[in-house]
Order: sequence, then C-alpha cells, then structure tokens
Amino acid sequence: MAEHDDDVPARRGPTARVRVLRVAGDSAGSRADHVVVEEPLQVHVRHSGTVSLLGSTMRTPGHDHELAVGLAVAEGVVRSRDDVLEVRHCAGDLRYSESDVLVALAPHVEVDPSVLGRVAHPSSACGMCGRDHIDALLDQVPPVRADVVVAAEVLAGLPDAMSAQQAVFKRTGGLHAVALATAGGRLLAVREDVGRHNAVDKAVGVALLDGLRPDVLVVSGRVGFEIVQKAAMAGIPVLAAVSAPTSLAVDSARAAGITLAAFVRGGRMTVYAGEDRIRTDERPAL
Amino acid sequence: MAEHDDDVPARRGPTARVRVLRVAGDSAGSRADHVVVEEPLQVHVRHSGTVSLLGSTMRTPGHDHELAVGLAVAEGVVRSRDDVLEVRHCAGDLRYSESDVLVALAPHVEVDPSVLGRVAHPSSACGMCGRDHIDALLDQVPPVRADVVVAAEVLAGLPDAMSAQQAVFKRTGGLHAVALATAGGRLLAVREDVGRHNAVDKAVGVALLDGLRPDVLVVSGRVGFEIVQKAAMAGIPVLAAVSAPTSLAVDSARAAGITLAAFVRGGRMTVYAGEDRIRTDERPAL
Repeated sequence: MAEHDDDVPARRGPTARVRVLRVAGDSAGSRADHVVVEEPLQVHVRHSGTVSLLGSTMRTPGHDHELAVGLAVAEGVVRSRDDVLEVRHCAGDLRYSESDVLVALAPHVEVDPSVLGRVAHPSSACGMCGRDHIDALLDQVPPVRADVVVAAEVLAGLPDAMSAQQAVFKRTGGLHAVALATAGGRLLAVREDVGRHNAVDKAVGVALLDGLRPDVLVVSGRVGFEIVQKAAMAGIPVLAAVSAPTSLAVDSARAAGITLAAFVRGGRMTVYAGEDRIRTDERPAL
Repeated sequence: MAEHDDDVPARRGPTARVRVLRVAGDSAGSRADHVVVEEPLQVHVRHSGTVSLLGSTMRTPGHDHELAVGLAVAEGVVRSRDDVLEVRHCAGDLRYSESDVLVALAPHVEVDPSVLGRVAHPSSACGMCGRDHIDALLDQVPPVRADVVVAAEVLAGLPDAMSAQQAVFKRTGGLHAVALATAGGRLLAVREDVGRHNAVDKAVGVALLDGLRPDVLVVSGRVGFEIVQKAAMAGIPVLAAVSAPTSLAVDSARAAGITLAAFVRGGRMTVYAGEDRIRTDERPAL
C-alpha cells in the first residue's frame, strides 16, 4: 500500500470533535461526536517563473500534495512524474499556508492557459476561497428566522415522507433528493438531481417562484458547507440530513444561526447546531 | 406539493435506457437498465441589456428553470420573486437551447460582477460546458490500455477490501473512499475525502508521485462524468463503483474505452461499458 509521505496540515486532522445533541425518540442527551473536516484548498502551478491558480476545492486535509498533483493530471497539465519539480504547501512565495499547495512544473511542460482557474469546487464560496473568504461570506449571510420550532418526531418523519415522493431514484438508484417542508411536517416540494447542490437549487428555486415559505430543508445524503450556505441564502432555518455533516457545515450552520440535524433516520437524529429549534419531550439543559 | 410547470427538455427525460451486462457470481447476462441522466446546464442572467454567464453545472434535466433561479439565489443575485422578470431556455438570444437557461432580472436588481461565472460544477470539463464541449474533451482523452482483463470475482471483492482500509469513515460516516488496485486484486492505495472528486485526485496523485501502475480505480459511491474523465486522464482502464452511474458516465466511459462496472457489491455487479475486460466463467455473446 502506497503511503505517500505528505505533510498533513498541522492545525487540523481529517476529523474534528464537536458537541452535539443526540435525540432518540423522546430522549435527548448532549455528547461529543466526530465529524469529517472540510476545508478549502487552492492549487497553484508555477511555470516559467509565474504562479497561477489551477483550481480550488473543499477537501479533507491530508494528502494535499497528492490532491494537487492529481488535479493537475485531471486538468491535463501534468502527464508524468518528470513534469513535476516540486510540491509544497504555499501560495507561491515562501510563506507556508495550509490552504494552498504549489506544484512547480518542469520547464518542458506546456500549460494551456485556458485550464487555469477553471476548477472551482464546490461552488460560490469557493471561487477564490480560503478560510478568510468563507468567514467573510458567512458575515454577509442574512440571519435566518428564529421563530421556528420543530418537534423532533416531526423532523424524524420527513426523510421517509420524502423518499415516498422520489420518482426517479427507484428506477436508477442514482439521485439525490431534497424536500421543502413546514415546521408542522407538511411537504411542500420534492426535487431530485444527480447533484446534491442542484437538487437544493431546484427546491430553493421553486420556493421563490411559487411563493412557498419552507421552514425545513431535507437532504437525502451528506451535508457540507455548500448546502448550509444555500439554505442560509434562501433563509431556510432548519436543515435535516439523512447522513453525515462536515466540520464546515457545522461551523457555518452555527455562524448563520441555522439548525442542523444529521443522521436523521430510524427515529433518531444528531443535532449539530441550533438545537433550540428542536422540541423533544425530554430536553436536558446543555 | 408544488409542481412548478417547468419545461422539461424534449430530448431527454431524467432517466435513460442503456444495455448492460449483469454479473452475479459466475453467471452473466445482457439486459436493459435505467440510468439517471447527467447533462450540462449553463445559467445566464440578463441585466441592463447584457447577458452574462452566472454558472454551469452538470444536472439531471427537469425543473431547469427552478435550478437556474435557485442558483441565482445561492449566488445572492436574486432575493425575491420581484427580482425575476422571466426565465426561459435559451443562451440569451431567441434560439432555444436545452443546455442553457436565461434568467432575466428586473431593472432594480444590482448584480455584483464578481459572482458571475464563479460557479463551475463539477469541474474541468464543465468550465465552459455544453454537450459540444464534452464531446470535444472526450476526443482529447488519450485511449486507455486495452490489455487488461479482470476476473469478475476479483473486482467484486475490491470494495470490501477498500472499506477495511478506510480509517476516517468509521469515526464520522462522512467520507468517500477511492482505491487503486491491480488486475490481480492487490490494493495499491486507498484515499478518503469529503469530496469524491478529491479522493480520486489524491489517488491519481499518489499513483503519479510514487510510480504506481493501477489497473482499477474503485470508488465508494456513485460515478458521474467527472470521475470517468479523471480516470481517463490518468490512464486507468477499469472503473468499479459501489453505487449507480449516470448516463454521461456511461457515454464517456464508452467513448474513452474505459470499463465501467457499477453496483459492485454483494458478489454482483452491472457492467455498463467495456465488458470485454471483465472475465466470468460463463460469458454469453453480446
């Protein structure tokens, strides 16, 4: 097994500890949990004395050098080991940055200028990202409505109600679903797409076009920063995901005042942010 | 339930039929299957008489107008129903295009020029996409090695071998895994990331940096165009996914000469492209 000796950034590993509220039926308790870390990375290439941005992505820290080189391969910039002189964490100067990797290219490499800066994963916030940019973006997000309370059992039932409405998934197994719902548990719309972010955009779009006023956004899979950002921009106060959240989803939900419940399945859920909007019969002081 | 009366493009619906080879143990049979459609969409905004590209994405056709408006909300361009004058399929002129949606903004809307063109999902091929662009890109992909044959039972065992190596997923449930393997079934490297595309980039990166020569790329989830494109650029001839492929993954695997097996789990798999590289004891003529 290849274990490339890549410098894992010092500040964070691949997982982070967060305090959560675990809800099962009517019981709820505070405990520590692990989430996968999601952080922005910018990949730069140096060629003929010039440093250019190749692309940016939201990644889990670790093996950053490999990620940078692999991205350069995917973009057709690097084709063999000889094309790479050096890979290091920095933005082009000698200053270390855990959010930037520089791939220094050999003189014989020809770079098509049209590929530079073309990759921007996973979206908006990431165009010219970096942690500062994300913080700045979150500062701009309008605070969401605070006057919404959802019963835990209502929230727990939404994923199944959404699944029952999924038309395409049954045939292909290949779609993400997103639902809009009221705090009372009424589904307003269900949208599917091969891309999670598209399904959210479709749901937000129908809400705006048809004048819906959803309290809850339900997503069928995992939830990262981008989904929280989209919920915040749409002013939806509660986000419920069937699967796991990322560190940045938790951080950004807390910053934006959004309630984030994940692993919402089988009558259970884990609340990572904004637990004051979740009502259970038994609520311990946190 | 809101059902916005959005024009579904005429050419394709949300699913497509493809011919596949279904393999279970030593038996294999050809049959028809459905896959979810993945197609590029470009979203434009018209403002003060000028049309600008807001972003591009790979989406499942249907509810395209909602998707366009939702993207505009996420980017902070649209905040209320009054901001939108009209939404239609076209690239800015009157010519209909199923790959382009135009959102005409009301005169009072102020557009921050820095958000324009910032969204490019899911990557490279999509920077300035459109079906023609994808075809052009596939034309450039170097043909992968043809001299690789993998036994179906070897391929079937790779996802479990990969899972056993996943360090972070167990703690968080939040990671995609990618493995590199030889045709004989030996794992060369396993990489994890919150983003599927990043995990592939990391795997491709370690292969290049360490001089590995993988025959098979294994991915823990679904497989779309972007993953096939990355495999093709890295010259890896066999792609095995635990979950579903998209239409464009199938089309592009066939175009690039890549073997694509999906739903590889529980001793079964469905082969969508390049079935000549899969060896079973019982192989019907196709």
